[in-house]
Amino acid sequence: MAQKPSIPKGTRDFSPIEMARRNYIFDTIKGAFRLFGFKQIETPAMENLSTLMGKYGEEGDKLLFKILNSGDFLKSCSDEELTGRNLPKLTNKLCEKGLRYDLTVPFARFVVQHRAELQLPFKRFQIQPVWRADRPQKGRYREFYQCDADMVGSDSLNNEIELLSLIDLVFKRLGINVTIKLNNRKILAGIAEVIGEADRIVDITVAIDKIDKIGIENVNAELREKGLSEKSIETLRPLLTLSGSNEEKVEQLKAMLGSSETGMKGVEELETVLNGFDDLGHLCKAEVDVSLARGLNYYTGIIIEVKANDVEIGSISGGGRYDNLTGVFGMAGLSGVGVSFGADRIYDVMNTLNLYPDSVAQSVKVIFTNFGDKEALQSMKYIKTLREAGIPAELYPDQAKMKKQMSYADAEKIPFVAIVGESELAENTIMLKNMSEGTQEKVTIEEMVKILG
Amino acid sequence: MAQKPSIPKGTRDFSPIEMARRNYIFDTIKGAFRLFGFKQIETPAMENLSTLMGKYGEEGDKLLFKILNSGDFLKSCSDEELTGRNLPKLTNKLCEKGLRYDLTVPFARFVVQHRAELQLPFKRFQIQPVWRADRPQKGRYREFYQCDADMVGSDSLNNEIELLSLIDLVFKRLGINVTIKLNNRKILAGIAEVIGEADRIVDITVAIDKIDKIGIENVNAELREKGLSEKSIETLRPLLTLSGSNEEKVEQLKAMLGSSETGMKGVEELETVLNGFDDLGHLCKAEVDVSLARGLNYYTGIIIEVKANDVEIGSISGGGRYDNLTGVFGMAGLSGVGVSFGADRIYDVMNTLNLYPDSVAQSVKVIFTNFGDKEALQSMKYIKTLREAGIPAELYPDQAKMKKQMSYADAEKIPFVAIVGESELAENTIMLKNMSEGTQEKVTIEEMVKILG
Repeated sequence: MAQKPSIPKGTRDFSPIEMARRNYIFDTIKGAFRLFGFKQIETPAMENLSTLMGKYGEEGDKLLFKILNSGDFLKSCSDEELTGRNLPKLTNKLCEKGLRYDLTVPFARFVVQHRAELQLPFKRFQIQPVWRADRPQKGRYREFYQCDADMVGSDSLNNEIELLSLIDLVFKRLGINVTIKLNNRKILAGIAEVIGEADRIVDITVAIDKIDKIGIENVNAELREKGLSEKSIETLRPLLTLSGSNEEKVEQLKAMLGSSETGMKGVEELETVLNGFDDLGHLCKAEVDVSLARGLNYYTGIIIEVKANDVEIGSISGGGRYDNLTGVFGMAGLSGVGVSFGADRIYDVMNTLNLYPDSVAQSVKVIFTNFGDKEALQSMKYIKTLREAGIPAELYPDQAKMKKQMSYADAEKIPFVAIVGESELAENTIMLKNMSEGTQEKVTIEEMVKILG
Repeated sequence: MAQKPSIPKGTRDFSPIEMARRNYIFDTIKGAFRLFGFKQIETPAMENLSTLMGKYGEEGDKLLFKILNSGDFLKSCSDEELTGRNLPKLTNKLCEKGLRYDLTVPFARFVVQHRAELQLPFKRFQIQPVWRADRPQKGRYREFYQCDADMVGSDSLNNEIELLSLIDLVFKRLGINVTIKLNNRKILAGIAEVIGEADRIVDITVAIDKIDKIGIENVNAELREKGLSEKSIETLRPLLTLSGSNEEKVEQLKAMLGSSETGMKGVEELETVLNGFDDLGHLCKAEVDVSLARGLNYYTGIIIEVKANDVEIGSISGGGRYDNLTGVFGMAGLSGVGVSFGADRIYDVMNTLNLYPDSVAQSVKVIFTNFGDKEALQSMKYIKTLREAGIPAELYPDQAKMKKQMSYADAEKIPFVAIVGESELAENTIMLKNMSEGTQEKVTIEEMVKILG
């Protein structure tokens, strides 16, 4: 009985045109990574569950896809354990492996496992799919690609300046106008300190992260609920309503955070990075935004988020500095800074703004029609010459009706059609039709290489 | 407690140099696919188990990696079912999804699912990892890449000729000397027919496939065991000991298979393909080999296998024509022909023969040393100019000892080191060291772009 085929929810097939567009994005990002000296690595899709569990919080553990052990997967479960139905415990007995959830934990594992062979500072990039058992919804998939670049083993702020330059280059090449928003975890710590609520940094930053969406009064209401005093909330207010240029914001922060050593360090770092970036002269704008609080679990210094200026969408890239990437695997003291490009959101932005060059939709440059065996064989010889010159070319394989062959060329957006019929065969010529201009001319194969090359 | 990190057995991490080499292979194959007009698709890593099960035989079903359902994975199992320990039945209840086992079944599923949007003939390529719970051993992994190109919706033998040309181009570009071995399923059917054992085709071909390894006498012994008569075995002997040129082998086959219509059709197809391939003029040799019996479950016409001439290793590429790719998903009558490149074996051959160009090992073309903040900032400006000219360049991020910086450049095989110290900063010059020649000269950034560009 034939099945009606489908794919698991939250996953996608990519058609040739979608792949061409995605490749354009990935190739642009990869090209930029390489220009900056990042070196590619790949890690396996499956990691030991012991590597993955506990790294993404309790919720994350649930969202990991787990692989059923091969062979007798029940062998280490007693009947009592099975009917006891303790799911987390049974999961551990049924499954040893899981699919990677992000590229950061596998990278940390990689660095620790291969530290003897690695040259520090180590600049790596990695572009691979990750899997999360999230509820699928618009723009959220269970399989999606991450594109990460990280530098580990150096705490120089030059790395931060480099990363901002990288972001600038990627989006300049893709044609997306962006704003880079910058903050520093140390500034957030300093804010919590100067309002007298140092131990409430998470509550505070979670609340102020929402300021763009819900406004300052609602943020303050939330802080009141969390038990912050009116005094703290009032001290916080000017920090949340910084305005003016980056220089002005930095001056205001210095004035307000003077009593916090950590806070002042954060401001100083931010200033160094901003000045360096400005000095180099870039296309995109970098903007201080102290409400930015992404990745608070792991970022310890600069925090980066990139927004598209011309499309309403979440951040399309983000990153920051972390001081303890590999600690959980027993290698302490390795500082790093990294950025991740959100390929799926970038794809949505590119589609919305139609930013692809025309050539992306093309497969071959020319197709030879097929009038029979002799003509086809001669055409294949011409095609061989074209390919040797680097020109993608193909033969319509079947001796079908001309109309069918032409409509194939049309549907595939092939810009030239080459016809070798009886007379062309006798003359060693080719009738070359330019599909967009509607013109045609008789040429030799040498002329054809020049025209299409 | 820190864990000692490792990866699941049969899986691999790829280091920067390994990735550079693998990318060289993949890029070469991709470039050839595109020159021939194949269009890339991707399918999800996870497929529904209903798509995968039953497609690879009973053994294959066991080798599928299955994904434990999210949430309460026991919800559809009664206590009795659990303690009954019927593994295949429980697998179905615990798991709805599995990891893809090859690219062929997902491609068939793709064609059927998207047939309304597809233009036939459809030429697709796909390069993605697949997963098999095989026992890991040397050269056999649980995660490995397949590189497949197929043309479906055309039964012209021109497609076969194109595929052989594709194989020729790929290995020419990689620098691997290969021999293409050719057979036709119809010839195998014809052989079984003329020796009077038409219904024993599988036994016969499984046995004769081993002739290279165990010799004809052992093959005959195996056939005797399978119950073939002495007369059949004697009639078979000359078919297994064909010698001479392809033309001579074809003539011998014609003489011996004359009574089998199917067999003669197979010989005729083989002859057409060989003549077409010869006419086009290729580098590699195509060779008739009637003992070739790969993919007997699905191939219905030509069978292709590629052997490296200079390394002892199994086939590094293979393929053939199949007439019922999509039948199992309810779409009958779609013929196709395809080829698969074995990336891991090709990688082993390339490593053994050291066939990579030198540039593969390089990350950036030049690294700027770091003497302090001012010098670093000026260096970053130069680096920006270099990158804009397409030259990969980086800054050593930290103000470390010169020796450490130079040994980094050395270990990373960076061909040029640029030094901007106090005097260069004052003069707007750069001291450029050529690491392989051991020379250095003072240049401006414009000169540097010319030298490295």
